[in-house]
Amino acid sequence: MEKIYTLDTTLRDGLQAQTVSFSLKDKLNIIGLLDKLGVDFIEVGNPAFGKADEEFFKKLESVKTVNSKLITFTPTCRVGEAATDSVALNALAGTNIKYCTVFGKTWKLHVDEVLKTTEEENLRMIKDSIEYLRSKGKTVFFDGEHFFDGYKHNHDYAIEVLRTAASAGADTLILCDTNGGCFPDDIKKAVREVTKLFGVKVGVHVHNDCDMAVANSVTAALCGCVHVQGTLNGIGERCGNANLSTIIANLQLKKNFKVLPDGHISRLTEISRAVAQITNLSTTSMPYISRNAFAHKAGMHVDGVMKNPATFEHIDPSLVGNKRNFILSEISGKSALVNSVKKVIPDMEKDDPRMDGLLKVLKQKESDGYHFEAAQESLELVIKRQLGLCKPFFEVEKLKLIDEQITETSANTSYAFIKVSVNGVEEIAAAESDGPVHALDQALRKSLYNIYPSLQNVSLTDYKVRVLDGRSSTGSKVRVLIESSDGVDVWNTVGVSVDIIEASKMAIVDSIEYKLMKDMNKNH
Amino acid sequence: MEKIYTLDTTLRDGLQAQTVSFSLKDKLNIIGLLDKLGVDFIEVGNPAFGKADEEFFKKLESVKTVNSKLITFTPTCRVGEAATDSVALNALAGTNIKYCTVFGKTWKLHVDEVLKTTEEENLRMIKDSIEYLRSKGKTVFFDGEHFFDGYKHNHDYAIEVLRTAASAGADTLILCDTNGGCFPDDIKKAVREVTKLFGVKVGVHVHNDCDMAVANSVTAALCGCVHVQGTLNGIGERCGNANLSTIIANLQLKKNFKVLPDGHISRLTEISRAVAQITNLSTTSMPYISRNAFAHKAGMHVDGVMKNPATFEHIDPSLVGNKRNFILSEISGKSALVNSVKKVIPDMEKDDPRMDGLLKVLKQKESDGYHFEAAQESLELVIKRQLGLCKPFFEVEKLKLIDEQITETSANTSYAFIKVSVNGVEEIAAAESDGPVHALDQALRKSLYNIYPSLQNVSLTDYKVRVLDGRSSTGSKVRVLIESSDGVDVWNTVGVSVDIIEASKMAIVDSIEYKLMKDMNKNH
Repeated sequence: MEKIYTLDTTLRDGLQAQTVSFSLKDKLNIIGLLDKLGVDFIEVGNPAFGKADEEFFKKLESVKTVNSKLITFTPTCRVGEAATDSVALNALAGTNIKYCTVFGKTWKLHVDEVLKTTEEENLRMIKDSIEYLRSKGKTVFFDGEHFFDGYKHNHDYAIEVLRTAASAGADTLILCDTNGGCFPDDIKKAVREVTKLFGVKVGVHVHNDCDMAVANSVTAALCGCVHVQGTLNGIGERCGNANLSTIIANLQLKKNFKVLPDGHISRLTEISRAVAQITNLSTTSMPYISRNAFAHKAGMHVDGVMKNPATFEHIDPSLVGNKRNFILSEISGKSALVNSVKKVIPDMEKDDPRMDGLLKVLKQKESDGYHFEAAQESLELVIKRQLGLCKPFFEVEKLKLIDEQITETSANTSYAFIKVSVNGVEEIAAAESDGPVHALDQALRKSLYNIYPSLQNVSLTDYKVRVLDGRSSTGSKVRVLIESSDGVDVWNTVGVSVDIIEASKMAIVDSIEYKLMKDMNKNH
Repeated sequence: MEKIYTLDTTLRDGLQAQTVSFSLKDKLNIIGLLDKLGVDFIEVGNPAFGKADEEFFKKLESVKTVNSKLITFTPTCRVGEAATDSVALNALAGTNIKYCTVFGKTWKLHVDEVLKTTEEENLRMIKDSIEYLRSKGKTVFFDGEHFFDGYKHNHDYAIEVLRTAASAGADTLILCDTNGGCFPDDIKKAVREVTKLFGVKVGVHVHNDCDMAVANSVTAALCGCVHVQGTLNGIGERCGNANLSTIIANLQLKKNFKVLPDGHISRLTEISRAVAQITNLSTTSMPYISRNAFAHKAGMHVDGVMKNPATFEHIDPSLVGNKRNFILSEISGKSALVNSVKKVIPDMEKDDPRMDGLLKVLKQKESDGYHFEAAQESLELVIKRQLGLCKPFFEVEKLKLIDEQITETSANTSYAFIKVSVNGVEEIAAAESDGPVHALDQALRKSLYNIYPSLQNVSLTDYKVRVLDGRSSTGSKVRVLIESSDGVDVWNTVGVSVDIIEASKMAIVDSIEYKLMKDMNKNH
């Protein structure tokens, strides 16, 4: 089994993605997650790139990783500048991080029109920059920016640039498809040539502008590259970087390369999703790690998978820590439903007379816009309520919300009033906040704390809103998804209404009901 | 230039995607859009699949297409059933649609474990089904389900199935990677063999479970397939079908195939986005057609593109009807901002003394969570307000919103009260609705109709909510994006607040301000 080194650049190139920005804490969390997964290198940028980077690098001095090495990133010195004078190079020399990447131009077009200098000067900048960092004890990787475009348009110069970097002592030459325009055959041809030339390691870094980044990265590995760069969920500017989680699974599970440390690949789903949560990007249909990756909706497919999973699954989902998911839908038959019900009530059989009523209720809810796949605990409550297996712990009798905005004084306040009853005893509570949903959440919990003190430990850890039918505009139905935690468990609930306040209330009520039911089952 | 036939299966296989469902009107709209783009075939399913399909096919009788042909879809007859007795086959025989696809098993595993029949019976079912539809005057395509898995595990039987279909008169043999587990090399090997064997057209239909669907489809075309299936934005079950819009652009712009009718490829962006709007799926980072596909955020990239677009763009975005987009961000420099400002005020120069103040305001707004890329008209208003080039047409002085939910009577009402002033004259209005945002929208417009009657023609055509920081839960900041139209123009505005009501108000106010400004400019 040949080893493929992986480099995750979420914290450097991934940051170029539109809408992505990370706090210092986010960055440290991502490093912890990538290290737990066990990628070989985590790219962290350059302390000279800005104030935030400077602070980040201060924190990095005390960061200890187990499986991964940190690696910094820098441009070469500038046109006409001595390497020893370069702010970016000196910033790296001053860190305690041994690995660094120098990126330089390999495409003549960029030398001519962007740098506006000579071919020789560009070679000099690359040589001096690498040698300078080497003299400071660093192991240097060279990123050949736009290598594949350069190779196509000015083959000899692109190779000359790589030769210069290799002679200057680069440990690994990384061939970049910076504009993302390459096809697998372009990659194959260039990689086959380059891997034979210099006797140093060769890697690739590709973008996804033709939706070929994963195929290109895998092709490169099959043709002799031993190092692959990307971002865990493919985030990056324009159409993204190569998706490293998919590449890892493809190479390790399907082509028998050694990529992650032994046993770590089963962490892929958990860690990719945790990183996605921090980047606030959806992984809806992502290969291998998404909730949909092994979801089966059509009745025929569900039927096939139940006979033999290999009939409709390209791998066993547990290999990457994911699981099979039968989705209830108009198309899907009774078998998917039975499966969902069995998760909640293991001994309920397919021909149980209550099954039909349940099917009807769930189908209605789904067509109303409920999305149980993302809210398993609401599904559990619906099933148990329908079967009379759980009684409500409380009843919301009235809810009134007032939201007031006075432009002159910039006052902006939400008040929530709520009346609940618990076993016939009524309780009224009110709360005030700067947003209506938060006010409602606070008021509801306040009204219940006396009776159910364990609710004090519950916090809502995520809140998502989706407009279900954008076409009817502000009168649209919305779906609210809430994630809650009590420090031990995490659960997800859902509400749907044309009124966002009501949808939020439904999801919050389910969250509280679930917690109380869970506690009760534990105590009995 | 060799012709590649395209088949879009959004309305059949695309429907397997989780969360996707289409109304009858949606389906007819999608057909109109695909026909305008000019794909060769539009797959429409089978009237025997359900009541909704039956209605759909009734409507289809009067649908006229210009560039595309409709094509139906059916399983073979069942095990032990005569083709003449098959409900699904007879349903197709009864339509006036000439083209149809019959799908059958090519993988022995499915014959053994799903159909639970003999290899011979499976061949019989395929032969009889194709011959029966041929006898009814149909042109028949054969979808070899799981062909590539069958080819790998039981090569001879998979080929035997194709031979049977070809002998029975299939016009095109479609090789399916139903589980999406193939790599380009698997495709290459099989396609090269099959295209030489039977003298009939060969096509591919692949799924994206390894993020290789586009690479696999392009590889198939390069190896001799003349027919490619997919869905315009890659929707489909699990990780999706092959993304047809990317495949079309890749094959036509980069490999010189003839795919769409002459001149139609510049419609790709508009039509892919319109279909995405109907399917309610985001195209955020999609190759070629998304808003991000040619977006440049990093200062260095923006600088390069301004020197020569080829430095950082793999194609000219106008070829597919898309455009370049400079994104304002912390990373991007002044040049991107200047570019945005110049779109609004063409004669404002880079060194204009007002530029710095503007830069500061816009950077602040962006770091607050504004997302001007999706709300160009709010950006225009911010710039003009900052430069004193537009005065507000009205002022919202007070806004009060009451949302009441009474469980016992299931009453659920939102009331909005609003006080605006126009040139010192105050106006008060109220509205009631089943949701707070709708009530607010109604009240605001009511308060202004007397003074600005042209607002009667404005409707809000889209409303989107995004929670900006899910981690602080129900107290999170939300961003509201609104799309408005007056039947002539469409414009997008944005609001950001921890209070969803306030964020909605901001976006609605911007929408109305923009309309009034636009009208004023027209009249002067």
